[in-house]
Amino acid sequence: MQKQYLLAPGPTPVPPRVLQAMALPIVHHRAPAYKEIFAEVREGLKYLFQTSQEVLVFASSGTGAMEGTIVNLFSPGDKVIAVRGGKFGERWSDLGKIYGLNVIDLDVEWGQAVKSADIAAILEREGDVKAVLMQASETSTGVMHPVKEVADLLRGKDDTILVVDAITGVGVFPLPMDEWGLDVVVTGSQKALMLPPGLAFAAVSDKAWKFNERSTLPRYYFDFAKELKNAQKGQNAYTPAVSLIVGLREVLRMVKEETLEGVHARHARLADAMRAGVEALGLELFAPDAPSNAVTAVRAPAGIDGQDVVKVLRGRGVTIAGGQDHVKGKIFRLAHLGYAGDFDVLTGLAALEMALNELGYDLAGRSGVRAAQELLK
Amino acid sequence: MQKQYLLAPGPTPVPPRVLQAMALPIVHHRAPAYKEIFAEVREGLKYLFQTSQEVLVFASSGTGAMEGTIVNLFSPGDKVIAVRGGKFGERWSDLGKIYGLNVIDLDVEWGQAVKSADIAAILEREGDVKAVLMQASETSTGVMHPVKEVADLLRGKDDTILVVDAITGVGVFPLPMDEWGLDVVVTGSQKALMLPPGLAFAAVSDKAWKFNERSTLPRYYFDFAKELKNAQKGQNAYTPAVSLIVGLREVLRMVKEETLEGVHARHARLADAMRAGVEALGLELFAPDAPSNAVTAVRAPAGIDGQDVVKVLRGRGVTIAGGQDHVKGKIFRLAHLGYAGDFDVLTGLAALEMALNELGYDLAGRSGVRAAQELLK
Repeated sequence: MQKQYLLAPGPTPVPPRVLQAMALPIVHHRAPAYKEIFAEVREGLKYLFQTSQEVLVFASSGTGAMEGTIVNLFSPGDKVIAVRGGKFGERWSDLGKIYGLNVIDLDVEWGQAVKSADIAAILEREGDVKAVLMQASETSTGVMHPVKEVADLLRGKDDTILVVDAITGVGVFPLPMDEWGLDVVVTGSQKALMLPPGLAFAAVSDKAWKFNERSTLPRYYFDFAKELKNAQKGQNAYTPAVSLIVGLREVLRMVKEETLEGVHARHARLADAMRAGVEALGLELFAPDAPSNAVTAVRAPAGIDGQDVVKVLRGRGVTIAGGQDHVKGKIFRLAHLGYAGDFDVLTGLAALEMALNELGYDLAGRSGVRAAQELLK
Repeated sequence: MQKQYLLAPGPTPVPPRVLQAMALPIVHHRAPAYKEIFAEVREGLKYLFQTSQEVLVFASSGTGAMEGTIVNLFSPGDKVIAVRGGKFGERWSDLGKIYGLNVIDLDVEWGQAVKSADIAAILEREGDVKAVLMQASETSTGVMHPVKEVADLLRGKDDTILVVDAITGVGVFPLPMDEWGLDVVVTGSQKALMLPPGLAFAAVSDKAWKFNERSTLPRYYFDFAKELKNAQKGQNAYTPAVSLIVGLREVLRMVKEETLEGVHARHARLADAMRAGVEALGLELFAPDAPSNAVTAVRAPAGIDGQDVVKVLRGRGVTIAGGQDHVKGKIFRLAHLGYAGDFDVLTGLAALEMALNELGYDLAGRSGVRAAQELLK
């Protein structure tokens, strides 16, 4: 028996009471019992997203809701800016191009946050940009992008919307959709929502719904207007992932109990401790200037392959994530989002110390655990 | 406490050992432990579909795999025949039209099976038909369409493929993909596969993969070629619905234990008993000539609204399905697929007798239960 510890940036651990809720016998999705569950879920999602809009729910991974955003709100030829500072930024760019949008790639060095001034410059230069597509938290690099600054740039511009992939943002740090004026917020179930993968969410502002009326791209399964119409009647357009919805109700109850402020504060506390621990080990953060509270990306120290760190940890029962694409081997990523507490951070740091030691890194008496403990007192 | 009995044609009940498997802590989808699970699932799916092709798995409802079939295999203007004999046949037609295909609707009276001669006549007349899109089992009417006859029509025609929505067909009655020469077979998790909703499946023949090479429609989340490439490496293109995949492994083990022949025989036995019971009550089957072994559709007797039958049964804790669209109120549907046994059929019939009695139907001493018991001896 080797006990397993999941510290990857999604899927994340599922709390026992949620596992238990999902293990209950199946409810039929057209039965009144389901309507009650879904009504509670709809309310809980509005609180989570801090919006009065309906939060649409799809049976898919988060990518489905990203694709849905493109095919529901835009038309071929529409000019959009894609903030491309990591693997998920590239996904916005790819999706836009596949559907014939005129994508202006704003390339940002991996590990850096986008500068809102650079977006402002493109908006100024181009004039007719329909949307800015960005991540709130770029999971591949551990960066938090300045969503509020970009939202402020677009405030009052009726012809430009802000589309935010907040897959590792919602439920991690503040992204109050209505207050900040975010037009589309997308997330998935398997991150801060502490559920198995299989649900995607999208909330759409009044401004963005007007884009939906003009969009000419074909769509069917990810049809936002059809889903909205059904949600307002308390149901789903297609058979929903019932067991995940039942689990989601439980998660949203937990969020309400902890309060959204509490959830954000816990993530900030854990992220601060993880970063302090990592730096105390003499390691460099990959995104020191704008780190996301969802996941800490760390540069592999000289002479050590980041993938080896991942492998050694796996051998000890601890799952973290490596780098992707051109930073593969150069970084590794420790997550602290969702169903995470103080001792998960300490476990991650303790395991990391042991792995680095095994790989020949000289710890020189340094302790990441101790540094983190100081912050978790 | 009112005990609940789920006799609707999906979602269907989930066996306890599957619920238990899904309640286990989350496995990371890029970890070796997941690869092992997915490898077993891939083999089990090939057995279930009776194919040597890869069976692609998507986190979505079955509709997602139907849409995927359209956008991966066809191009705008392609001429296809949609067998439109129920709500799901209409879905093929709608999907084709939304994506700009030239859809020839072959309308079939609800409750009837399509005549393969009618398909042959259109193929003859039109010459350049790229595909026949049909259901194996039309869930909305309880009809089984003659898939093998249609497959025989298309045998040897390199330019025409047979696309089968087998969402309530796979795991219910024989549909050996390779032996019959079916080109695309689609199913979902929440029917005979005894899982919660949230997974869709599609298997594609060599002939149909050639269509994929020529197709010009844009796609991303439901990209068959990308999913195939990933599956062959033992993984998924996007984050899979891990807990459902773990449940699926358990289901596929159950199918292997019972054998596919055993699974089909059980469904035939239950369906025969249900039909005999319904007819013994003096009721008419909605699809007497070609009934599906997944679900029995019954005409509401004169003077009784089918929706009232559904409501009265629900009041007793028994969930069945009503009619949809223009047969709403005219029929009701009792399912016997997936995790179903003799006493589910008897429960359905006993509850139906009580509901009909309550609604003023004169049973005149007739017993559906007794008639079914005779067949279940």
